Amino acid sequence: MTTPTHLPYSGIATFARAPIGQPDGDWRATFAVLGIPFDIALGFRPGARFAPRALREASLRYVPPFSDLNGKVWLDPASGSDPLFVDAGDVMLPSLEPELARKRITAAARQVKARCRLPVFLGGDHSVSFPLLRAFHDIPELHVVQLDAHLDFTDVRNDTKYSNSSPFRRACEALPNLVHITTIGLRGLRHDPEAAQAARARGHTLIAMEDVAGRVEKIVAALPAYRNVYLSIDADAFDPAVLPGTSSPEPDGFSYALAMQLIRGLVRRHSILAIDLVELAPNLDQTGRSELLAARLIMETLSEVHDAGH
Amino acid sequence: MTTPTHLPYSGIATFARAPIGQPDGDWRATFAVLGIPFDIALGFRPGARFAPRALREASLRYVPPFSDLNGKVWLDPASGSDPLFVDAGDVMLPSLEPELARKRITAAARQVKARCRLPVFLGGDHSVSFPLLRAFHDIPELHVVQLDAHLDFTDVRNDTKYSNSSPFRRACEALPNLVHITTIGLRGLRHDPEAAQAARARGHTLIAMEDVAGRVEKIVAALPAYRNVYLSIDADAFDPAVLPGTSSPEPDGFSYALAMQLIRGLVRRHSILAIDLVELAPNLDQTGRSELLAARLIMETLSEVHDAGH
Amino acid sequence: MTTPTHLPYSGIATFARAPIGQPDGDWRATFAVLGIPFDIALGFRPGARFAPRALREASLRYVPPFSDLNGKVWLDPASGSDPLFVDAGDVMLPSLEPELARKRITAAARQVKARCRLPVFLGGDHSVSFPLLRAFHDIPELHVVQLDAHLDFTDVRNDTKYSNSSPFRRACEALPNLVHITTIGLRGLRHDPEAAQAARARGHTLIAMEDVAGRVEKIVAALPAYRNVYLSIDADAFDPAVLPGTSSPEPDGFSYALAMQLIRGLVRRHSILAIDLVELAPNLDQTGRSELLAARLIMETLSEVHDAGH
Amino acid sequence: MTTPTHLPYSGIATFARAPIGQPDGDWRATFAVLGIPFDIALGFRPGARFAPRALREASLRYVPPFSDLNGKVWLDPASGSDPLFVDAGDVMLPSLEPELARKRITAAARQVKARCRLPVFLGGDHSVSFPLLRAFHDIPELHVVQLDAHLDFTDVRNDTKYSNSSPFRRACEALPNLVHITTIGLRGLRHDPEAAQAARARGHTLIAMEDVAGRVEKIVAALPAYRNVYLSIDADAFDPAVLPGTSSPEPDGFSYALAMQLIRGLVRRHSILAIDLVELAPNLDQTGRSELLAARLIMETLSEVHDAGH
Amino acid sequence: MTTPTHLPYSGIATFARAPIGQPDGDWRATFAVLGIPFDIALGFRPGARFAPRALREASLRYVPPFSDLNGKVWLDPASGSDPLFVDAGDVMLPSLEPELARKRITAAARQVKARCRLPVFLGGDHSVSFPLLRAFHDIPELHVVQLDAHLDFTDVRNDTKYSNSSPFRRACEALPNLVHITTIGLRGLRHDPEAAQAARARGHTLIAMEDVAGRVEKIVAALPAYRNVYLSIDADAFDPAVLPGTSSPEPDGFSYALAMQLIRGLVRRHSILAIDLVELAPNLDQTGRSELLAARLIMETLSEVHDAGH
Amino acid sequence: MTTPTHLPYSGIATFARAPIGQPDGDWRATFAVLGIPFDIALGFRPGARFAPRALREASLRYVPPFSDLNGKVWLDPASGSDPLFVDAGDVMLPSLEPELARKRITAAARQVKARCRLPVFLGGDHSVSFPLLRAFHDIPELHVVQLDAHLDFTDVRNDTKYSNSSPFRRACEALPNLVHITTIGLRGLRHDPEAAQAARARGHTLIAMEDVAGRVEKIVAALPAYRNVYLSIDADAFDPAVLPGTSSPEPDGFSYALAMQLIRGLVRRHSILAIDLVELAPNLDQTGRSELLAARLIMETLSEVHDAGH
Repeated sequence: MTTPTHLPYSGIATFARAPIGQPDGDWRATFAVLGIPFDIALGFRPGARFAPRALREASLRYVPPFSDLNGKVWLDPASGSDPLFVDAGDVMLPSLEPELARKRITAAARQVKARCRLPVFLGGDHSVSFPLLRAFHDIPELHVVQLDAHLDFTDVRNDTKYSNSSPFRRACEALPNLVHITTIGLRGLRHDPEAAQAARARGHTLIAMEDVAGRVEKIVAALPAYRNVYLSIDADAFDPAVLPGTSSPEPDGFSYALAMQLIRGLVRRHSILAIDLVELAPNLDQTGRSELLAARLIMETLSEVHDAGH
Repeated sequence: MTTPTHLPYSGIATFARAPIGQPDGDWRATFAVLGIPFDIALGFRPGARFAPRALREASLRYVPPFSDLNGKVWLDPASGSDPLFVDAGDVMLPSLEPELARKRITAAARQVKARCRLPVFLGGDHSVSFPLLRAFHDIPELHVVQLDAHLDFTDVRNDTKYSNSSPFRRACEALPNLVHITTIGLRGLRHDPEAAQAARARGHTLIAMEDVAGRVEKIVAALPAYRNVYLSIDADAFDPAVLPGTSSPEPDGFSYALAMQLIRGLVRRHSILAIDLVELAPNLDQTGRSELLAARLIMETLSEVHDAGH
Repeated sequence: MTTPTHLPYSGIATFARAPIGQPDGDWRATFAVLGIPFDIALGFRPGARFAPRALREASLRYVPPFSDLNGKVWLDPASGSDPLFVDAGDVMLPSLEPELARKRITAAARQVKARCRLPVFLGGDHSVSFPLLRAFHDIPELHVVQLDAHLDFTDVRNDTKYSNSSPFRRACEALPNLVHITTIGLRGLRHDPEAAQAARARGHTLIAMEDVAGRVEKIVAALPAYRNVYLSIDADAFDPAVLPGTSSPEPDGFSYALAMQLIRGLVRRHSILAIDLVELAPNLDQTGRSELLAARLIMETLSEVHDAGH
Repeated sequence: MTTPTHLPYSGIATFARAPIGQPDGDWRATFAVLGIPFDIALGFRPGARFAPRALREASLRYVPPFSDLNGKVWLDPASGSDPLFVDAGDVMLPSLEPELARKRITAAARQVKARCRLPVFLGGDHSVSFPLLRAFHDIPELHVVQLDAHLDFTDVRNDTKYSNSSPFRRACEALPNLVHITTIGLRGLRHDPEAAQAARARGHTLIAMEDVAGRVEKIVAALPAYRNVYLSIDADAFDPAVLPGTSSPEPDGFSYALAMQLIRGLVRRHSILAIDLVELAPNLDQTGRSELLAARLIMETLSEVHDAGH
Repeated sequence: MTTPTHLPYSGIATFARAPIGQPDGDWRATFAVLGIPFDIALGFRPGARFAPRALREASLRYVPPFSDLNGKVWLDPASGSDPLFVDAGDVMLPSLEPELARKRITAAARQVKARCRLPVFLGGDHSVSFPLLRAFHDIPELHVVQLDAHLDFTDVRNDTKYSNSSPFRRACEALPNLVHITTIGLRGLRHDPEAAQAARARGHTLIAMEDVAGRVEKIVAALPAYRNVYLSIDADAFDPAVLPGTSSPEPDGFSYALAMQLIRGLVRRHSILAIDLVELAPNLDQTGRSELLAARLIMETLSEVHDAGH
Repeated sequence: MTTPTHLPYSGIATFARAPIGQPDGDWRATFAVLGIPFDIALGFRPGARFAPRALREASLRYVPPFSDLNGKVWLDPASGSDPLFVDAGDVMLPSLEPELARKRITAAARQVKARCRLPVFLGGDHSVSFPLLRAFHDIPELHVVQLDAHLDFTDVRNDTKYSNSSPFRRACEALPNLVHITTIGLRGLRHDPEAAQAARARGHTLIAMEDVAGRVEKIVAALPAYRNVYLSIDADAFDPAVLPGTSSPEPDGFSYALAMQLIRGLVRRHSILAIDLVELAPNLDQTGRSELLAARLIMETLSEVHDAGH
């Protein structure tokens, strides 16, 4: 890789200026990044295919180590024996063939997961969470925590079972070890009652956005401690004022601070196995602040994970 | 009309996929939509002429029926004998001839009003509220509730009596039945003292934006119950962070939640006769979230109206 | 439909202010428009899903009748017994299910084709030309004339046989009556040699962009006269300077005048059965001139067809 | 005025860094600039109200003197006794009151005209050419040369006689001294046959765009030499590829070189009394090249005028 | 100057329609504006060079006098003997030569400061605060209050001592009279620990954004009363949702109301000597609300200063 | 590097999916790419700092090998012993320190030049050509061929000798071996007569844009055959209609075809040692076609170089 620089617009954009590693290559890392530029499963405004590259670029504003005004340091690349980050590039996707795409996503996610402490998956639309979760079929008692305006637990929508409305329904069918989903940030006018009922029948926790503020600790504590958590962050969980670059924005979502408060709580009480960040559409926000916020969210989350040390 | 679809970008864009009815046609509906693509009366950044069509397109993200996570259903098109919606198209406006435009707006509004329980008027700049209100000359004790950063009660501005600063002054002069106006959300540096004094002399209620939060119930209760209310929503009532697509944004406006809290209160205590949504300039917000928010606001308001049943 | 108006931004946007007819409805028209907002088969920048609606809006700048400076009139809606235009809306597509999408496209195209003299299909990416052509399986000796920077005759690309690189390969396999394709405007650096060879082996005519200027009459005459022609126009046939709103622009393409000269020649010598206009991505051109040019091209082509009278 | 600078983005933007003079002030200049930010008479996409300021900013890339590679100098501010330029600011327009606006435009144009050798009027939509021309009621045998895609000689359009389709019809009615109009660049599908006939009946010269290239000298010579010419340049005369920022673009218009060739011919054979540049909509072209081209056109035209010396 | 108008898009854009005065001219004013279109010292997204002109244009929405709904008037231009405002234009900067640029900035700032009660400096990136502060070398016990997401007290960054990360470090070195800096709004992941330590060693006050809300009075009171304060406002102090047009946005910043609450407190207790507004990048926010908010902030701040009368 | 893919939006963006090599690393290649994201020496609209990364992304639409419709293949990566391409990343630049920046540019250019047959330098503004040319101080009889609207041979502009107006003046002073410059495409109104005279005094060839068409062979032949040529391509050589993304566009520039005709002639008669592509500002063209055209130009030029084999 070329010599690192501090100017975010300079240099070949790997995530946080990490070295590149093939998904099946000979490397180890604390954190590894895998892009999934797949957005043909959404039903409104496309553009999530551009997110992995936009997140790589935005990450260059947030290259570790970090420190606060008192000199405390986080995510120090010099602190571990493995590299802190490896950028595993993007899954090599086919055009148009959704089933083949899902297979390749699962395969690449498995490879990356095997090489790091915690993989960070950069979508793509939310449909990719299903094939990503399949790479975690071997985790006993897998929990999903999902920040999202929408439940994404619909059985069939627009004649398909694999759109970005259905990833967690499919995952629950395919993964017996996926024992519980907590969805936080729900809002909007068009909930799918069958999906909500099916989720509740499985014991899932559904939390409306209006019930989050002031109740973060209670929400975090509702999961038994030290669970294995796959954290799925939909960009539309955020308020469109702070993150306008997403296909299906809904008013009155998370602020950055509230999302971090929630994530911080999760990280401290549970074991985060993997993170996906989906539905970011950089082409819909010409101010660039959407990907900057998402990149910072990933970095600050990983700082907390690193700090928590479990 | 072509077969409905659930993909918002697909199909001929009528409001909420409603059937089309001429303003003077042979139809009845619970709600009817009329566009007024007129924006030559504003004094800053044009574009409200594009709002009716943008709102039709955005409404396709919010096609009823709606339901919450518990399966409760609102705005069920199957619930009434009349169609839930008819889209009456746009007033056929002349170019440049403001007086003729106002006449046609009043005439079309009367026709649409006669055919539905509640018309929804899609501006256009705020000057259109004057000719729209003229269609309600026959309502005893008409009240206006106006969400707006500005009072719009100026006598003459920039040598005209008919700009978007004056619609309610003109309406009060023309309509003896217009007994009271409540303006909510006022803010900014350049109030017209003469207008404020004239409004107060008529007994109008002027509420600054900073006085809304936490006082919504009191505001709603200040109107005697069960009044006939014409609800006029200026896009610049909202905070520019959540609705940047408007000619004259002012910081520190309504959030979506606060606006809905206020509207919900109004709907439950009063009888909403008509709604106008004005000063939306979709060309000034390339993220598209301005018209999405406005479309949702209309839909959620109508859900409340439908639910209230009076 | 609402009263027509002459202001392009006003009114519900049907193509050329045409009445709406369901694809399977009870109507006849000289020309009928069908949208196919399908763009998940392209491999670069999405947005063609927004083209049918953008073309409807742009068509309102070009509502017939037309006339020249000498008073000659074309496309006079009053001239025929059938309506000049019917807008059949958009094919109701599924999400993500390409095979089902293709079936519905073929079915709707058949219905529309049966109800008019000449259907105009508004894509969508170029992959839709395959299912559209299937609706013409009954035409003896079908010719395709394709204006395009790319051959789109590739067998398999990116692991799929159905991308926007392959529609004419698939069509030739499926339609024994498709006897010949003339592709005009080819340019770029990455031709698929196998595709070119396969096309030539079938006797197709491949014309590079640099060979068009000054040779239009020869090109037109190369087809035996009075053939049944399906005209497929890819937006990237045009020079990106005049039509920047397309997924995969290539420098040095058609000017509007040259394209019309070619089309005029075609229309006069042959029988145009149908037209598709594909790969227009209005989201990639904020000046709006891309859809305006495409709408005018359609209208001027139909004027020529109408004039030719065969 | 603040100290001049060579950085176009720096300093208070007067035209070509000229001193400011009130329209009725005590000044003289060779050239004077007057802005008319009036765009409520157009029927499509607004924005020409932003053109005077955009042209002032763009003019800072083209501040005289100019010189060629051989050292020849044009528009040398040091060469005359009067200042080369004065910027007379913008006409102080009312809101919404078209008749009052036209009166003020005529009055200000008269004042500016009286103070300079040649006024340059920056529209605004094309409707302003009527009140501008009224300031030239005292010129014997006034000729208009109009570069335009459209004839703008329509009697009534959209219920008004004063839209941007009618300025020259109104001017001919009001000004007996306006003996002839030459319109160059006509194209499009929707000519108004009555307008064309009326123009021809008056002996006007109508030249289609397709007839310009290669025939510039003949066109110029068709006017008897040494006529008093008011030159009206509509931004849509240009090809939308080179000038996309205009309300109603039409393909296949003037290149910059062809327009300058024509103007150069005009200037050398005739006496240019005034120039207006209208229908520029900077908000529709985010590349900024539209106003840069228009500013250069004005400057190069004035160089020719200065050089011609008559 | 041209006749004033009330339409913000009309007329030559001087700040608040003020008369123009050269920095070294013969004038006096209560407030004077000086632009510094210098942005080559920032390390991310350029555009602050366009801010002075954008702020002048935006100021035309906020031309004094101001009044509230009760008729109270602020900033009445008729109230003083000196003009309320003079616009001193922009510093005439060189290209590329940072040291020369800094010299000219200091010189022009001195000239403007000598001619008014309070100069308002419009950056430019934050590096300009160093040369601006040098113009205040003669103020005994100078305090800086800085609203900013970043400390900007770094010694060397990216091999330079003069970037927008270092202005206050350089100012402290150069100005013995600069006794104290209060920085408010700090947040982000990449603080410079050495800079924080150096600032604290000098006794500076560092206040994180999360500690501002609810503590404004305490923050204001922490400065001994009636200090001489130079107020430096970095656009990135604001939340990117309300002010997206800045090079380096950070989530969770000031709302407009909170910033004004803080500034109001400052103004009432201290003597504001000068204001700079920096790091506004209008090219990064096509909604225009960033410069509108900044212009209003300046105007409302000056109203408070004027009101305070000290 | 991650597995290559054919989807341009996918994967870590190195130029043409090349492996990465440090400028001082242990590698060899036929072609090597070095970015110079430096744009603080231009005097108008910044953004060229974003060009190297944008060109890497755009290059993914043009990954070799290439082939024509007859199966002829160019730039076959399998054809040589060295890798066809290495991407050497970007020069690690300081902030704000122009002299240090120039030193680093020269040093990195030397390193890259020593490792490949032909380096491709991606600017940056045109000022970088001076430090780049210094890396060619050892070439006997170095010729520069410059495609540019401007001469860039000015001695001092805006108080600096190192802006993007002066690179070739500085290079001629510093490099005795730089024997001749041919500048092609000159146009505009503000030539620097002293610069033109100085260039001619050195025997340089200055060719106006209007003299290029139809005379390409003569232009190419004017250089004695088989010279060592450094080819410097300024984005503003192109017509703004085909390449709007540049700081200082000038009308009536090169089409793509004309530029390639010229370059093809150069390549066949001379030995191209290096190429720079400067002044591309991707932020000024949201259609993306500017960088796509520039990337294709580079690729097609290299194809010709490879084909020429000398």
